[in-house]
Amino acid sequence: MEEDMLDINFDNFRQDRIGEEGLGEFDLDAIAKLIPAAHEKFQQWRTSGDAIFYDLAGSKDISPEIFEVAANTAENFENLVVLGIGGSALGLRCAAQALLPPFWNMLSGEERKGKPRLFVCDNIDPDTFSALMRFIDVKKTCFTVISKSGKTIETASQFFIVLEKLKQKLGDDWRKNLIFITDPTAGELRPMVKAHGITSFAIPPKLGGRFSVLSPVGLFPAACCGIDINALIGGAKDMADRCAKPDIQENPAYAIGSFHYWFDAKKNKNISVMMPYSDALLLASDWYSQLWAESLGKSGRGQTPVKAQGATDQHSQVQLYMEGPNDKVFNFLRVEKFNFPSTETKIKNPSSAFSYLDGIDLGTILNAEQRATEGALTQAKRPSLTISFPKVDAHHLGEFFMLYEIATAIAGAHYGIDPFDQPGVELGKKLTKEILEARL
Amino acid sequence: MEEDMLDINFDNFRQDRIGEEGLGEFDLDAIAKLIPAAHEKFQQWRTSGDAIFYDLAGSKDISPEIFEVAANTAENFENLVVLGIGGSALGLRCAAQALLPPFWNMLSGEERKGKPRLFVCDNIDPDTFSALMRFIDVKKTCFTVISKSGKTIETASQFFIVLEKLKQKLGDDWRKNLIFITDPTAGELRPMVKAHGITSFAIPPKLGGRFSVLSPVGLFPAACCGIDINALIGGAKDMADRCAKPDIQENPAYAIGSFHYWFDAKKNKNISVMMPYSDALLLASDWYSQLWAESLGKSGRGQTPVKAQGATDQHSQVQLYMEGPNDKVFNFLRVEKFNFPSTETKIKNPSSAFSYLDGIDLGTILNAEQRATEGALTQAKRPSLTISFPKVDAHHLGEFFMLYEIATAIAGAHYGIDPFDQPGVELGKKLTKEILEARL
Repeated sequence: MEEDMLDINFDNFRQDRIGEEGLGEFDLDAIAKLIPAAHEKFQQWRTSGDAIFYDLAGSKDISPEIFEVAANTAENFENLVVLGIGGSALGLRCAAQALLPPFWNMLSGEERKGKPRLFVCDNIDPDTFSALMRFIDVKKTCFTVISKSGKTIETASQFFIVLEKLKQKLGDDWRKNLIFITDPTAGELRPMVKAHGITSFAIPPKLGGRFSVLSPVGLFPAACCGIDINALIGGAKDMADRCAKPDIQENPAYAIGSFHYWFDAKKNKNISVMMPYSDALLLASDWYSQLWAESLGKSGRGQTPVKAQGATDQHSQVQLYMEGPNDKVFNFLRVEKFNFPSTETKIKNPSSAFSYLDGIDLGTILNAEQRATEGALTQAKRPSLTISFPKVDAHHLGEFFMLYEIATAIAGAHYGIDPFDQPGVELGKKLTKEILEARL
Repeated sequence: MEEDMLDINFDNFRQDRIGEEGLGEFDLDAIAKLIPAAHEKFQQWRTSGDAIFYDLAGSKDISPEIFEVAANTAENFENLVVLGIGGSALGLRCAAQALLPPFWNMLSGEERKGKPRLFVCDNIDPDTFSALMRFIDVKKTCFTVISKSGKTIETASQFFIVLEKLKQKLGDDWRKNLIFITDPTAGELRPMVKAHGITSFAIPPKLGGRFSVLSPVGLFPAACCGIDINALIGGAKDMADRCAKPDIQENPAYAIGSFHYWFDAKKNKNISVMMPYSDALLLASDWYSQLWAESLGKSGRGQTPVKAQGATDQHSQVQLYMEGPNDKVFNFLRVEKFNFPSTETKIKNPSSAFSYLDGIDLGTILNAEQRATEGALTQAKRPSLTISFPKVDAHHLGEFFMLYEIATAIAGAHYGIDPFDQPGVELGKKLTKEILEARL
């Protein structure tokens, strides 16, 4: 493994670390026997186009139009407001949290290097939406509407409100403040593109929202804010290459997907916790939660993903993790090198009770806490894997996205379900429409 | 029930709604039989002082000093930075999210009515902390350090860094920018109060962090930002009164605690989802998650709390909730009346595919989605309760806090564990210290 790649460590899954609850020789042999069929299924999904996410990291370069429009958008607008929900929002939110400086929207234009502030409207709470509309100058705002089908009720609702405002404020120029990211030919938004000449990017028709971060859905808004999307794609490609072989020892994505499946199916771990020890990676757990839940929660199967934050949730969830039911698999994320100089958080003159902190910086303490929590859970016989980011940058985030996307597909193959559909959300949509049509 | 109180509806727990998985006559009889012992245990905890949270909502008025110091703080400082983690932060974060206008920290001083911006440092991520220290003017910042014991490594570390900065910038006046909220006599912080005349508030010694939001821990910073803390306490008192009787039919807190326990212990629901359909109430699920996990996750027992956001997570988690394992109890929060005028989010001229949205506002859609998701889960035989907030204000939030605090105590009594300790976090603390002392 190259030094500058994500390090993925499964040692605390092993029986010699956590006893009977762990993976022993029997388990590893049994899992290895499942791999060929899962691999074949994955190849079928690639052929059928269901697993098209894999090829987003492929040889094709990113369309130059994305860079051009992103540069124009950054030049012409103060704010980028993304209207999108679920898979149309989470990958971008995760990338923005990871790769933009903290307090981005509170920084000056100069500090943001002329890039726009970013607001991702992934809910329809009326107070938040009203406050945002009062807060921004819509004339100076680019609204990027993301919905493959154009049928997403939340995004459509926001769009109709915004459209009226744009027409009010800008007259015939309303279209200049809109960008659509949608199906290349079908759906409710595409006809508007043609009728009004609205700038647009295409979402590959077979690409599901939760696998779309490396498509224009995530890439275009990220590029507007100055994120290095070439590095994001490059990292994803490196991970795809690293995960090509159907071998659990050498393919970390297959290992993650297969081990999680095994812990759920054979060891009663129906919960999977993602706990980043890094504020930058905080929303990686939200992104993962959608990916895991919506892909695998079917036919009465599927682990429930849980978001946790290190070190914060040591003071909230870790009591349960240590002494509650042994029903969880833990995914730790840690960062070896932070962005700001460590001197800025170095402790001097601590009180005598904390003399051991003298000269230590916050990053060192945070990482010690990660090791300590991992160690404590291991002593309590709870399985965990740990992923180390050499640092949080676009390349490593790209690796992370691809790692868990492949892992999800492989887990889906093991469960014998289709990880690319989401039939369970239809009833709710139907009932919503009925309630609103009846004006109940 | 008075009209302006929280409405708490358990109908979707019943067998006539969700079949065998629900609560039938047998279950309700069995639960009713458990109530007297649980009630007695709760009374014992009140007598011993363990359940002192209950009496925070009692007859005593809030100390006038809190109002005075809060007014001075708001007058003299641009920023309020709270250094605290876990229970020292979550209640405040929840209250601030619920009760301050959206985008609080981005509003002008005038729009904030002269109240300070609020930053709650509840993690030690070095990049966030460095960025914050660069962003604020420490001279214009009041740092409120919250730790009962003063031994919390994260809070202490932040404090030492801040202390050096204050001394650098302010010389002998450093103490004027500090407020401590800590044990009245013991701990690492109290001696500094005495030695340097630092303004301080006392945390009742027996009060655990996760039950402390209605003590100075939550009240003082909330008051600084202009939150009506009298109403918060008043709401809590109303709920305490409403939950006085040991009767599952009339006491919603006892019902929540007892039903959750029963679903976990007898119906294999080891997960409890809190899903607010309101951005203002988003962190209510974080606050609940700490309360539930740290209080009840012991002796191999305890449900795992899961945070979800309505409507957003319909596009992320609901697939799993509908078709995954039937291993969850759902807690929905909804809001009947939002703060901003509904006209601001009213939809006009929707496309023909969405003609049924014409004239409807976002709040109506959001609430329809809540009903739809609740209805869909009921059809899928998944148990849920729904709490309706007439609106999100300090009074109703106070009700909510007390409701779940009592519910947690009662659940603890049913589990036969002590809901007020957290022995499981000690090993991690010990290992952290060892790692740092060895400078590994």
